[in-house]
Amino acid sequence: MKKLINAIDDVVKEQLEGMAVAHPDLIKVHFEPNFVYRADAPVSGKVAVISGGGSGHEPMHGGFVGMGMLDAACPGEVFTSPTPDQMYEAAKMVDGGAGVLYLVKNYTGDVLNFETAAELAFAEGVKVQSILIDDDTAVKDSLYTAGRRGVGTTVLVEKIVGGAAEAKYPLDKLSDLARKANMYGRSIGIALTSCTVPAAGKPTFDLGPNEFEFGIGIHGEPGRERFDMKTADEITEMMAAAIIDDGPYTRTVREWDNDSGEWVEKKLTDDPLKSGDEVIAFVNSMGGTPVSELYAIYRKLAEICKGKGLKIVRNLIGPYITSLDMAGCSITLMKTDAEILKFWDAPVKTPGLRWGV
Amino acid sequence: MKKLINAIDDVVKEQLEGMAVAHPDLIKVHFEPNFVYRADAPVSGKVAVISGGGSGHEPMHGGFVGMGMLDAACPGEVFTSPTPDQMYEAAKMVDGGAGVLYLVKNYTGDVLNFETAAELAFAEGVKVQSILIDDDTAVKDSLYTAGRRGVGTTVLVEKIVGGAAEAKYPLDKLSDLARKANMYGRSIGIALTSCTVPAAGKPTFDLGPNEFEFGIGIHGEPGRERFDMKTADEITEMMAAAIIDDGPYTRTVREWDNDSGEWVEKKLTDDPLKSGDEVIAFVNSMGGTPVSELYAIYRKLAEICKGKGLKIVRNLIGPYITSLDMAGCSITLMKTDAEILKFWDAPVKTPGLRWGV
Repeated sequence: MKKLINAIDDVVKEQLEGMAVAHPDLIKVHFEPNFVYRADAPVSGKVAVISGGGSGHEPMHGGFVGMGMLDAACPGEVFTSPTPDQMYEAAKMVDGGAGVLYLVKNYTGDVLNFETAAELAFAEGVKVQSILIDDDTAVKDSLYTAGRRGVGTTVLVEKIVGGAAEAKYPLDKLSDLARKANMYGRSIGIALTSCTVPAAGKPTFDLGPNEFEFGIGIHGEPGRERFDMKTADEITEMMAAAIIDDGPYTRTVREWDNDSGEWVEKKLTDDPLKSGDEVIAFVNSMGGTPVSELYAIYRKLAEICKGKGLKIVRNLIGPYITSLDMAGCSITLMKTDAEILKFWDAPVKTPGLRWGV
Repeated sequence: MKKLINAIDDVVKEQLEGMAVAHPDLIKVHFEPNFVYRADAPVSGKVAVISGGGSGHEPMHGGFVGMGMLDAACPGEVFTSPTPDQMYEAAKMVDGGAGVLYLVKNYTGDVLNFETAAELAFAEGVKVQSILIDDDTAVKDSLYTAGRRGVGTTVLVEKIVGGAAEAKYPLDKLSDLARKANMYGRSIGIALTSCTVPAAGKPTFDLGPNEFEFGIGIHGEPGRERFDMKTADEITEMMAAAIIDDGPYTRTVREWDNDSGEWVEKKLTDDPLKSGDEVIAFVNSMGGTPVSELYAIYRKLAEICKGKGLKIVRNLIGPYITSLDMAGCSITLMKTDAEILKFWDAPVKTPGLRWGV
């Protein structure tokens, strides 16, 4: 394993230290427990939007803290869920009096720990909500997950919900927007190589010199199937089909009831994409794949969407939700409407995503 | 070799097609000869800023075309100089009547071809200038290069000069700024792995499982020396020393005289960095190194700069001048002054770099 690191135990701490010294105008970092938060937090009268998860997916989530996106992000160790005290202390730091919304990728550890954090915050008189991101069409259940995994849609939801929070959406309305945006998003990923977790010191899995894995997770979890290597166009066709031909998906989520102080189960079914839909197209590098190859993918994706009657109205192309040094890419298509587009276009100023300001 | 490509001969063409369909609001692409240009070109009364070079360094240069940066970029095949007709046709497309400034990385093929293009444009009545970027402290002469190679400083010069061109700097004053910014910039790069050029199909060079190459070029050209792997802090110390302890550097450049219609040789010597200087710090991924590791490097670099009395007033951290999938990074420190900072901070809207708008 060759990486630009010092001691393995210090990898997350030192990258947080680097972020803090690089971007003091945008963010601050709290250590023990670890979280990244807006330099100007708390913003009075604004719902605080908080996400988090294992490290190794940079710039997500810490790189998306700042005006117009997250108020705080809680990084676990590499590919390891953060703990409830991180999420709870972050909430206390950034709560501006209008409540806290947790955006939670669907991994068992993340879900449990964010639930505990929500209960702790509520017990202190903070209105809370927790919205699940579960957009990966690759597999139904998987290692670490009951139901679909949370992947690329997370980046889009964080931007859209962050924009609406900035516009002072109240907690209920913001939660509705987050839930809708998640249900509008569908993703699929592929890997050409494994990533290497520093603490493991060797690749998470092996892929042959002429193989790729279709439907890979962002922690190197197995996907649907391995295939012999194909052209960029063929791979894009497979990926687009996994998203566009995906049927309705039903999941059961637990959301918080601030009146009763209890979790309430909800069954949510989303609609497949259909001809005439307008979409945001997100082509993401898993880390080791250069942006030039993403453009080759985008080129074919745009052609396929056009043929299917899907109109790409916005796009995002680059490494935004990565798996360390893994070569590969993911595609996310999110159906849009006027509300989503308005907040996608809103100004954002974070270390990892910036426009309009 | 596993890459997200179709036919090897179509790699550059297809990524340009992808860029064109992804960013029609920002750029257009001309094929045969190939160049990327601003969607709103020509901008009347503004000097057109044009750069280019071999492909494989994305987002540089095509990703830096747009408001506040380049008017056009001429991509060669991977790691291959573009041809004079690309540069000449690009100049004709984007010339807004105030002349054309070519920003040329110091590689023999690039320099020769941009000189020919400048002569062709001048012969058609366009005022032209060509400014050399030669900031790599690693080696004096190298494969493909007489004198120092042009590397990371290129990105910063394109941003600063692009901002000043937008503010309607005339050609002479813009050329002075470009020359100054280049002479204020110093860089060094390291590689943990080789890149793989699609047409070659195998890694450009071999590095052992515990080796890194210090002073690598952006085409995998040999650097100063190979070492056994070290910690991020140790590598950052070596890199910072190569830049900060670098003495005065004298180069002979050829610049165009629009009065006589001839090339004029100039001997230019720059000053080393010294305590009290304010700098822009640019920590760049060569492609395969994730941004999390760049923050570990930045953390140590900030500490070293502080100890040396160098004040980092701006920074840029991410993959901006890459070498395909090479793992590694480069550091650029550019001395700044009020003029440079003003145009660094100016709004920019390109596929690869955006702020303020």
